Amino acid sequence: MSRVAVKTDLDPAIAGRLKRNSDGLVAAIVREHGSGDVLMLAWMDDEALHRTLTTGRATYWSRSRGEYWVKGATSGHFQYVHDVALDCDGDALLVTVEQVGAACHTGEHTCFHNELPVTRPEGVTP
Amino acid sequence: MSRVAVKTDLDPAIAGRLKRNSDGLVAAIVREHGSGDVLMLAWMDDEALHRTLTTGRATYWSRSRGEYWVKGATSGHFQYVHDVALDCDGDALLVTVEQVGAACHTGEHTCFHNELPVTRPEGVTP
Repeated sequence: MSRVAVKTDLDPAIAGRLKRNSDGLVAAIVREHGSGDVLMLAWMDDEALHRTLTTGRATYWSRSRGEYWVKGATSGHFQYVHDVALDCDGDALLVTVEQVGAACHTGEHTCFHNELPVTRPEGVTP
Repeated sequence: MSRVAVKTDLDPAIAGRLKRNSDGLVAAIVREHGSGDVLMLAWMDDEALHRTLTTGRATYWSRSRGEYWVKGATSGHFQYVHDVALDCDGDALLVTVEQVGAACHTGEHTCFHNELPVTRPEGVTP
């Protein structure tokens, strides 16, 4: 679903550092404070980032629903924002949160619960 | 740069679970084994995932160069693949690696070294 640009109060100094994709979004990797577990990957536009940086609650742009998504607003599984970092080329964020309950809609702790088989040629470790 | 579809030996059972973006790519969150540090975000097509799962070395699709990118091939900063997990909706991977040297081309340990300012309304913790 396409995104309608909204007026945002995101600090222009931050907005100027973002390298958005063709939908106006940057990727947000969500990590649990304390455990360091990687919980999920979501997406933010400027306003979602502004809300994440200022409301204390992680807020994303839902690509499927075409609306802002305060994680936990429906499930109660809020993500309280601990810190946010931008990567070197401005197209990805690392959002560290206090996760209430399960991060994944399946009820799993993280969304990354499907292991894929890894094989290695002889002599290539770890 | 647009991606030319290549023949791939990726297991069709895995390929069938991927939900690729319009460029045929899935996001790959790269995490360091041991420290758990999130190092970078990269992208994979089916063949890059196949190479990552079978060669022991993390391999991505470079969107800027339009070619496969064995991380470390130029810098020596290889990523030896420890494990790979697919997320619940098939559009993101979590690749856990043994990182040789710095993950970021800037020389920093991780690409997420730019902290953004977080404020919280009173009463909203962590």
